[in-house]
This record gives sequence, C-alpha cells and structure tokens, in this order.
Amino acid sequence: MSDETVLVGIPEALESTKKALMAVGWGESDAQVQAEIMVSAETCGNNQGLVKMFQPSLMAPAVGSASPVIEKETDTTALVNGMQSPGMLSLKTAVDLAVKKSEKGVASVGVYNTSTSSGQLAWYAQRAAKEGRVVIIMANSPEFVAAKAGASATFGTNPLAFACPVEGRDPFVFDMSTAAIALFGVLTCKAKGEPLPENSAYDGNGNYTTNVADIAVGGGQGAIANWGGHKGVGIALMIELLCAALVPAAALGIVDAKKTAKSWGHLVISIDPAATVDGFAQRAAAIINTVATSHPDGVRLPGDSSLAVAKTNEANGTLPVPKKIWDVITKTAASA
Amino acid sequence: MSDETVLVGIPEALESTKKALMAVGWGESDAQVQAEIMVSAETCGNNQGLVKMFQPSLMAPAVGSASPVIEKETDTTALVNGMQSPGMLSLKTAVDLAVKKSEKGVASVGVYNTSTSSGQLAWYAQRAAKEGRVVIIMANSPEFVAAKAGASATFGTNPLAFACPVEGRDPFVFDMSTAAIALFGVLTCKAKGEPLPENSAYDGNGNYTTNVADIAVGGGQGAIANWGGHKGVGIALMIELLCAALVPAAALGIVDAKKTAKSWGHLVISIDPAATVDGFAQRAAAIINTVATSHPDGVRLPGDSSLAVAKTNEANGTLPVPKKIWDVITKTAASA
Repeated sequence: MSDETVLVGIPEALESTKKALMAVGWGESDAQVQAEIMVSAETCGNNQGLVKMFQPSLMAPAVGSASPVIEKETDTTALVNGMQSPGMLSLKTAVDLAVKKSEKGVASVGVYNTSTSSGQLAWYAQRAAKEGRVVIIMANSPEFVAAKAGASATFGTNPLAFACPVEGRDPFVFDMSTAAIALFGVLTCKAKGEPLPENSAYDGNGNYTTNVADIAVGGGQGAIANWGGHKGVGIALMIELLCAALVPAAALGIVDAKKTAKSWGHLVISIDPAATVDGFAQRAAAIINTVATSHPDGVRLPGDSSLAVAKTNEANGTLPVPKKIWDVITKTAASA
Repeated sequence: MSDETVLVGIPEALESTKKALMAVGWGESDAQVQAEIMVSAETCGNNQGLVKMFQPSLMAPAVGSASPVIEKETDTTALVNGMQSPGMLSLKTAVDLAVKKSEKGVASVGVYNTSTSSGQLAWYAQRAAKEGRVVIIMANSPEFVAAKAGASATFGTNPLAFACPVEGRDPFVFDMSTAAIALFGVLTCKAKGEPLPENSAYDGNGNYTTNVADIAVGGGQGAIANWGGHKGVGIALMIELLCAALVPAAALGIVDAKKTAKSWGHLVISIDPAATVDGFAQRAAAIINTVATSHPDGVRLPGDSSLAVAKTNEANGTLPVPKKIWDVITKTAASA
C-alpha cells in the first residue's frame, strides 16, 4: 500500500463507510455503529480504523449470524452471545448493558461467539466514561503471541483498556495491547512492506525477527512477542483467563484452535464511582495533573497522543486516509 | 544484615510472630491474622514476610487507631475505613466482604485510611480464589516511583494481584509491582548493603543508579523507576486512579504528600464465575496447561516460583529465616 493519503471530511468518511457497510449487507443502524467505531479510531490515528475496510467482503455479516442476545443475566452480571455478529456490535451491546447495570454499583458483562475483532477498545471505554463510569475492558483473540522465545503462539494480542471521567477535560482513556506489537500494527507493516519494530516478533527458531514473512500472519512459523517480560506474560494470561475461562469463548486447550473456533472473548467491568466516593472526576483530575507535571518537561501520559491527533483532526474537520483504502470505501459505497 | 539464616518450624514461626505482635499491643485475633500473612509471605520466599518484624515498634497499633469499619455499603459495593489500622487487617476485612458480596455476581470493595502497607497482595487474592472467586486486587502507596527519568516520585509501587481457582491444583496467583523493583526489594538491598538491580532506580539527576543511597528510601533525591515503559506507566496510573480517586485514600494533588497523609488505598474486584460460565476451574486449567507447555522446555508462569518454594518449605515443615530477624521476633515474643 502506498503512503499516499487523501483528506476526507469527517462526516463524509462516516457516511461513505456506513454506505459501504450497507452495500456488503448491513442494515442502517448496524452499519452506523461500525462506521462510527472505525472513523473514531482513524480520527485519533489508531491503526484499527478504516484499514478494516480494505477488504470489504471480510466486513460482511457472517453466514448464519444474528443480532447479539443477552444470556445468563443477573442484576449485576450478564453474558452477551454475539451470535457470530461482529465484535463491534457485540461489545457495544455489552458496554451499554454494563453501564446500565452498574448504576450505583458495579457490573461485569462478558461477550463470546463473535466472528471478528471488536477493533479499538478505547472507543468503548470512552463511551462508558462519558456516562460517568470507571471501566476496564479486556479482550482475547486467536493465537498470535508467544509467551516466550521459541514457544508456539498461545495468547491473542490481548488488549486492556481503562477509562474514567476527569473534571474539566475529556475522559482519561488508556488502551494497550499486551503484545509487543498489535495485530493491526503487523498488518500495517505487511501492507506497506516495512520491517517490524525491533524485538517485537520471533521467527520459527525463536530468534527475534523484523521480517513479517517470518511470522504466522505473514505465512511463516514464528509469532508476535509478548510485551513486558515476565510481568507482561502474567497480564496477558490474566486477560486470557478473564476473557476465555470466565467467559465461554474459544479457550486454549478446549478448542482445537481459537483461530478457527471464531468466538472472541471480552470482559467489561463497569463501576459507578458515586457508589464509593464523592467527586471522583475532581480527584482523577488532581492525580492526572500531578503526574503530568512531575517532570520539568512534562510527562506524556497514555492517551495523550491519540487525544491530540483527534483534536487536530476534529478542528480541521478532515481525516488523512490512505488513498487506496478510501478508493475501496467510495467504490463499495457507490455499488449499494 | 548478615545472610545467616536459621531453620524455624512453621507452627513455631506463626506462634512466635503472633506473640511478638501481642507484645507490641495487639489482641490475639488481630495478631493471628498479621502473623499468618507475614509467615505465608515468608513461606513462599516473598520479600514482604517476617522482615516487617525487624523493627517491632513499627508494627504496633497506631495511636488513636480502631478496628476497620464498613462505610457506604450497597448490595455489591462497599468502602472499608481502616480507622488507621494496619493495611493487613483492613484489606482482609475488604476481601472477605467482597467474596461474600460477589456470591452469584460481582462486587467492588475499596479500602482507605490504613496506616501501613498490606504486605503481599497474593495472600488476599489466594484467599478469595480458595472461596471460588476470580479476583483482582490493587493498591497504591506513597510517592516512591517516578513516571519517567528525572521526574519527581508520584506513584506508589502500585501492585496488581489476580487469582482464580484452577481444577486439580492450587489457585493461580499472580502478584506484581508496577515499579521496576518493589519497596521491600529496595529495603532488602539496603539492609544487606547490596546494589539495586540495573535500571530499577534513578538518581536525583534522572540517571540510572544501583546505589540505594541515591534514592529517597536511602536518603537521596532519586526515585524507583516504573516498570514496563509507557504501557507500564499507564497501568501504574490506572491503579493510582482506581485506588485513590475511586477510593477516598490519600491522592496526589489533594494531599500535600501521600507519605504523611497515611491513607493507603486499595480496590478489590471479586467475581463469582458461576454467574457467567459453567466449569470455570476446568477452563482455567486447560488454558494454563496449554500456555505452560507451549515451549519444549516449558514456560515458567507467574506464581510458579513462589508456589514451588512454598511447597518445599511446607514439605520440610520449616522456614529459613534471617537470624537477625528471628532473634528480634523471639526476644519480642518473650517480653510479652
């Protein structure tokens, strides 16, 4: 993919993406949600944005899929059966349910039986924080990541997102992968023909490689590396347990392969801070401001860069979108 | 402190530690809980064990302290006011309450107004997992850790623990500090006159140092380094927000100094897996076994080493305890 980009108006990006999704088979409201999530990721410069539309057929509704349904519901917990709908629709359902169930308390909602990735978790976390909630969202995914050099891939890229309201500014949103590089980072390197970052992947012999062709995503025998050493492996495993043992999604050692089982697991934990403390948002602002100013040059906090990119794009009213991706979207939209 | 150790029978270690705590002012049941937590840490080789007894006066009840009380209670949330009792007594109260409140659901319980560290979070997490719960426990603490080189210390060592039941074996327990080295690791280096590990601390100029005297704990101007790069800072900040904004503990930017405010914050999130899934423990076993055998030489998982040390000590029925610490404990116990 060349680096050539076009500047697209944000409303136009939303509208064309929605139309392209309708062209591949979605009803208007489901198309709208997915377009919003992808355009939002693109707006903050995240690599899980409109690149998902590069092969529109992959975004079509799965054969035999249906709308997500709520199972095993209690006052504070629930399980969303994605019915092979996309992760985006299932996770949005779960987050909205967790926000509602956590009013004046706490709620935990799982998601399984989704056919695809839910994309950038930050979008969902921010959505809950805008409703005043403190939220943790985690997801597991197919076998992309090795727990150590030379191990077979077991973990997904297993992201963790956290968000909360902050007085006087946008919510604090933190969204990280427990892999050394996120899957869409690898796909971007592959599409652009660029090397992977140093120390982010192993070849089939367990040596570090920067060649996408050496890892499974590129047709090789290697795997993405885990992030964060031994502690990072602990966090990735915790997410695997929370999203595939606590939730009946495709689990290592139970299904032959998470990749073919197509049941990506998610867990949403939502807390209404008013149940425990007065003035949460003011307290959060005091903490964040103190950390951000703890160095004479300032400290760049997680989410700062994404927020800055989003503010710039929103002020301009436009997004830089890779031309090859935009061409696919407009062509698909026009075919509706 | 010399490295000389004595072998102490585990029941004797418990009994003498309990008596020593009673000698400095504790009633029998409070002394018993604290002795159990410290001996348990010592049994699995953790550096937050009986070293806490080296200066028994620091373990005495704080002036004006009282037993922890439950505030702001709902069906699924609560706040434990530690009333300046030790972290150990307050957090045990909170964990037991969270286990109870999460029956067939989820619960979130905060802790504030504690006078000291709660010690090794693994003990509390394991306690909840033995009751069948999936649990996340976090704590913040005074300003020991800098968010980047040259920044003033803002974060505590901010540990995160996770535990869950696993079919056919002890619970999986994962307990990590988000600091590059835990506080008691620093205190151990200080006591033994050993250098700090490489890249675990900054001096007052923001350069890496291995000299304890360069950091605040040793009388210097520097700080412990955060673990895990930019993502690690995100996790440390998330813990700070969950334990000191969501919980009304001493918070950066609100109190002059967390260190003097003496109100360490904790958050316990407990989930009953039966609310969401059948056969959680079997699912967890399948996942853990698959990751552990994903490399021909096996993969060492978090908690494996602690569990192995504990099994060996329990089989022997004895603990190796530094002689200088054991002498203080027995002398204090005899003074009762």
